[in-house]
Amino acid sequence: MARMDARAQDALRPVEILPHINKFAEGSCLIRWGNTHVLCTASVEERTPPHVPDGEGWVTAEYSMLPRANRERSRRDISKLKLAPRSAEIQRLVGRALRAAVDSRKLGERTITIDCDVLQGDGGTRTASVTGGYVALALACRKLMEEGVLREMPLTTQVAAVSAGIVDDVPLLDLCYEEDSGAMVDLNCVMTREGDLVELQGTGEGRAFTIQEQRQLVDLCAKGIRELLAIQAAVLEGGAL
Amino acid sequence: MARMDARAQDALRPVEILPHINKFAEGSCLIRWGNTHVLCTASVEERTPPHVPDGEGWVTAEYSMLPRANRERSRRDISKLKLAPRSAEIQRLVGRALRAAVDSRKLGERTITIDCDVLQGDGGTRTASVTGGYVALALACRKLMEEGVLREMPLTTQVAAVSAGIVDDVPLLDLCYEEDSGAMVDLNCVMTREGDLVELQGTGEGRAFTIQEQRQLVDLCAKGIRELLAIQAAVLEGGAL
Amino acid sequence: MARMDARAQDALRPVEILPHINKFAEGSCLIRWGNTHVLCTASVEERTPPHVPDGEGWVTAEYSMLPRANRERSRRDISKLKLAPRSAEIQRLVGRALRAAVDSRKLGERTITIDCDVLQGDGGTRTASVTGGYVALALACRKLMEEGVLREMPLTTQVAAVSAGIVDDVPLLDLCYEEDSGAMVDLNCVMTREGDLVELQGTGEGRAFTIQEQRQLVDLCAKGIRELLAIQAAVLEGGAL
Amino acid sequence: MARMDARAQDALRPVEILPHINKFAEGSCLIRWGNTHVLCTASVEERTPPHVPDGEGWVTAEYSMLPRANRERSRRDISKLKLAPRSAEIQRLVGRALRAAVDSRKLGERTITIDCDVLQGDGGTRTASVTGGYVALALACRKLMEEGVLREMPLTTQVAAVSAGIVDDVPLLDLCYEEDSGAMVDLNCVMTREGDLVELQGTGEGRAFTIQEQRQLVDLCAKGIRELLAIQAAVLEGGAL
Amino acid sequence: MARMDARAQDALRPVEILPHINKFAEGSCLIRWGNTHVLCTASVEERTPPHVPDGEGWVTAEYSMLPRANRERSRRDISKLKLAPRSAEIQRLVGRALRAAVDSRKLGERTITIDCDVLQGDGGTRTASVTGGYVALALACRKLMEEGVLREMPLTTQVAAVSAGIVDDVPLLDLCYEEDSGAMVDLNCVMTREGDLVELQGTGEGRAFTIQEQRQLVDLCAKGIRELLAIQAAVLEGGAL
Amino acid sequence: MARMDARAQDALRPVEILPHINKFAEGSCLIRWGNTHVLCTASVEERTPPHVPDGEGWVTAEYSMLPRANRERSRRDISKLKLAPRSAEIQRLVGRALRAAVDSRKLGERTITIDCDVLQGDGGTRTASVTGGYVALALACRKLMEEGVLREMPLTTQVAAVSAGIVDDVPLLDLCYEEDSGAMVDLNCVMTREGDLVELQGTGEGRAFTIQEQRQLVDLCAKGIRELLAIQAAVLEGGAL
Repeated sequence: MARMDARAQDALRPVEILPHINKFAEGSCLIRWGNTHVLCTASVEERTPPHVPDGEGWVTAEYSMLPRANRERSRRDISKLKLAPRSAEIQRLVGRALRAAVDSRKLGERTITIDCDVLQGDGGTRTASVTGGYVALALACRKLMEEGVLREMPLTTQVAAVSAGIVDDVPLLDLCYEEDSGAMVDLNCVMTREGDLVELQGTGEGRAFTIQEQRQLVDLCAKGIRELLAIQAAVLEGGAL
Repeated sequence: MARMDARAQDALRPVEILPHINKFAEGSCLIRWGNTHVLCTASVEERTPPHVPDGEGWVTAEYSMLPRANRERSRRDISKLKLAPRSAEIQRLVGRALRAAVDSRKLGERTITIDCDVLQGDGGTRTASVTGGYVALALACRKLMEEGVLREMPLTTQVAAVSAGIVDDVPLLDLCYEEDSGAMVDLNCVMTREGDLVELQGTGEGRAFTIQEQRQLVDLCAKGIRELLAIQAAVLEGGAL
Repeated sequence: MARMDARAQDALRPVEILPHINKFAEGSCLIRWGNTHVLCTASVEERTPPHVPDGEGWVTAEYSMLPRANRERSRRDISKLKLAPRSAEIQRLVGRALRAAVDSRKLGERTITIDCDVLQGDGGTRTASVTGGYVALALACRKLMEEGVLREMPLTTQVAAVSAGIVDDVPLLDLCYEEDSGAMVDLNCVMTREGDLVELQGTGEGRAFTIQEQRQLVDLCAKGIRELLAIQAAVLEGGAL
Repeated sequence: MARMDARAQDALRPVEILPHINKFAEGSCLIRWGNTHVLCTASVEERTPPHVPDGEGWVTAEYSMLPRANRERSRRDISKLKLAPRSAEIQRLVGRALRAAVDSRKLGERTITIDCDVLQGDGGTRTASVTGGYVALALACRKLMEEGVLREMPLTTQVAAVSAGIVDDVPLLDLCYEEDSGAMVDLNCVMTREGDLVELQGTGEGRAFTIQEQRQLVDLCAKGIRELLAIQAAVLEGGAL
Repeated sequence: MARMDARAQDALRPVEILPHINKFAEGSCLIRWGNTHVLCTASVEERTPPHVPDGEGWVTAEYSMLPRANRERSRRDISKLKLAPRSAEIQRLVGRALRAAVDSRKLGERTITIDCDVLQGDGGTRTASVTGGYVALALACRKLMEEGVLREMPLTTQVAAVSAGIVDDVPLLDLCYEEDSGAMVDLNCVMTREGDLVELQGTGEGRAFTIQEQRQLVDLCAKGIRELLAIQAAVLEGGAL
Repeated sequence: MARMDARAQDALRPVEILPHINKFAEGSCLIRWGNTHVLCTASVEERTPPHVPDGEGWVTAEYSMLPRANRERSRRDISKLKLAPRSAEIQRLVGRALRAAVDSRKLGERTITIDCDVLQGDGGTRTASVTGGYVALALACRKLMEEGVLREMPLTTQVAAVSAGIVDDVPLLDLCYEEDSGAMVDLNCVMTREGDLVELQGTGEGRAFTIQEQRQLVDLCAKGIRELLAIQAAVLEGGAL
């Protein structure tokens, strides 16, 4: 089965990360992943929400799509007075994924908020948000180190994310929007540079899937994530840590 | 490692499903799963939301916790004017899980809404909602068949859900609240009676986890789900189909 | 005129109060009053809202119906971003009724919130909420006494509530849903065990009513409340005070 | 006991109703009742809400206080994104009271909305809203008759409302704000010109009250309402019917 | 071109300002400007919002129309859960205009909120709100001076506002609603008694307008504002300062 | 007085308009105006809001800032459940400005929504939104012409916008954020290519301003707008019409 854009079954779309895209944010990048474009900024605030223990920091994420990020214009959340449930789900995922890369004690009593705003969406916006969000986070941490605000680097590992799916019974890495629309199964992973899992979400949208298929999809994701970690590292000039 | 309640590592808590708990709903049950109690009702309405193709039906779910379902009272969503993001995430999961068991064409142009209201929560409320929600759904479908509203049974399979986690590096099936609070990794599965996956969500809350560990957790869940499917079938007097 | 369920005109439906229904709440019960089922929990918090004078406590109530408590499913408040006005009115009534039974100085600077969640509604949910809510409140007060948090019992009396109505010009005690739907007049009372009124609300829905009729309805309620006070006392093993 | 303003115990404050206060509304008045000033407008719309049977009309009310109607400025509902629960309760009362005076079939498929906006509040705003709202409603009905929109007068009776309370164990008619603040019991009635009750709400705020006291308060209200009906009739030049 | 009400092209509608219209507010007036009636109250609170520097005060405004202020009834903001965008815009304008007349240091750490509630609207409600709002503000400042709360008068100048428009290519002062509906251009000014501009907003609704026309409209407004300043001064008995 | 960036008093910051920045929108551009970056998309929908007369079209705008567009992160509107009042005001301005350039009958019964999302803000975001919004609108109109959806070009003129202000008593064109923060007076204009005014808003933030100053500021804006119209025309390859 040939893919729409003639990619191999285990190939990523072209991924480009432009760091320092925002003049004000402590860390930022624009990640262009095929036709999916996500602007990621990291904002540091010197306070933490009430549920965070004294002496620790907090990393959180917000996710939103611009109204015309998609093929059809969608109404803004504020005009519906309701955060889109899909956005609520995704920003919780991104937050958990990035917290897995941070030692909250080394961060100290401050919050880093990663805003992931999808300027254009063509599938894979949540994994682009994790992957770009990590770069924004790392740049912010580095800046806090350079300014002497932090004495120890709070990052403990590097994380990236990708999805894989089953289309016409064929496992494929990194589905674009059209592939995703016709996928029977969709699974995404967040992994560390050690190759361990941080998050794993799989859904049988068209049919259930076997445990064997699930394993294949995780293996495909692992391959993609290795490549994404390298792209991040190049942008971060040899790694964030 | 001994568990709090002396269960084996691969043992479920006691699960009891009381069907027909609500006089008005087309299908209903109260699922008591350890100290987690969820009231599930299935409500049939003769219309579908706009995004559903003509000639097809829709199954959706809503999830909410009563204010004092937990150790501490929490404020109602309406007093915050905001659906709890965790509830938004869970009800999307329950809806996807149950739709995987239904042929939407056989359901016809009607909506079945599964309301999952947690009267008391002690861990595992989302998997209890899927497992009890399926029973409510099956009872509603059976009622529609008996009344002649439906000619063909829209259920295509049976689904149930359970979670497993890693506590002190030991994989355990079906964590209660205290175990869950201290878990390093938490993974939940929805599976069909054919043993295939419908949903899979894993999170490394305390640490990342290896692909090998992920496989062990899925295997634990598969064992638990086989038992849950049998409990559902007994309540449904030999199966819903 | 024979009633639907062959009750005498001045007879209550069967009322059953199951105490300690919730493992976490300081006080709780499930009140089953005919086919009306309300879960009442009392939650203690060690702070009071701003309007409460220093040194005093506060008792408040929240009321909500589960979506399928009724013959037809209703949308949740949160999906309309609006507390149902009827719920707003009822929870204000329940709060006032229960505060009438409490010495706020003896309660000390703490809040007891009575959550009344209607699992199934067949008429009389507001009076069931007052009557069950009192039991949950009394159990919570007793627990605070037993734990030594309170030195003096803050309850000063016992309260219960019932409604009466005029159907086909006949005064009837404790209308069920079908009777209520056809009632011309509906009146509910909250009374103390001394036989005094705490709240009284009467509405001519189908026609106005004479002062004479109003007095008859209050007398009917007084009879019903005496029976309800006895049921509460039995559950509380001889009374809450 | 002398009252603040030297009124007799069964005397109303001075009440003045200025009709036609709004140039655009189908009916309107400003009711000045002591220092309580409520602007009442009746707006006719040629459609009804979904719950109204075909061929029938609907009368509804909305109630709001201007931010500085009171001794202290209060925030607007919109800044809290929440209708004040007290307003929700009052507008339901006003709506029920006015519907009791209307034959919905004679009104035809149209809605009359009575807006009661409190410009200045000094106690008794809900009863002023009912009493003034009736005048606005009657003027609107008369206008619809004069314009030939209606063939039969939909008003079937005349309604007015007043409250009475117990202050220092003395029953008093028509409490002003200071009296109301110190009242032990507060009871309000809506009655027809036939002397029958449409609504009755009594609350023991400081203590419970006996059935005998309740009867006294209703009798006081009945006296006050007879005077209010005469004031309305004078404004309506001999009655609205 | 003759105007609807036979006014000269540079003539205001009759303007009347009734001070002390509200018993509770620190300052208040009802401004009747043709058929536009706006109730303005000034409320003093002894605190300021967070963005105000220490030692300074704050003046802000809120604007709202009663539902039946207009030819057609409009829904209340709260029923739409949204402040009308037009109201948001107007209250920002009124606040800026009145702050221009106040020395925030002399006001001290307190907030004066000017509530402008339109009882009836016939064009020009925003300029009536500024003009009446100034009177309410001045009366409140005078009261604070008389009570010794303030030692120095915080008012530094006097402000009033009016609009002008182009109808059928003719520049006209102070458009009423019908004129405004057909206007090609609408421009409003806030000016001080020194004749300087504080706010200027012009919109080409039907067509663009030349710089020359813009100057003519400002000149018309300047004439009207001189008359309004005299009306304010008369009400304030020789000026507020 | 030397400006921060050594610009002449009547010089614009560098302005660059990148068209076709969004793959899905009917028209789009990114306008980079100094350090202010606004993404403008035009979305066509084949329906109009209820208030639009039959046979006519509608152009509207929405404006929002990304959370980290500014020096400090701001909370998203949805987390406050409230459209920022400043955004409400700006999007009304942008909508009016762009409608002034369109013949609504030639547009036919369709809506073009211009979304202006500020990626980075350094002063002048509203005028950048008008100026970039016009380009997105023109590109969308051209596309509708090319596709044969429209037979006649609905654009009737070209519009652009700029602001000018008074800093230390010196009139300056096109204030950046730091200049704007210290400005005494701020005035913005929308003008057509014929040199006529569509919108004009001036505010004395630090002091009132004379009519003479107002004229100077409009003249400065007129100069800037001529340059902006040329930049737009170059992007649109000789003009949109």
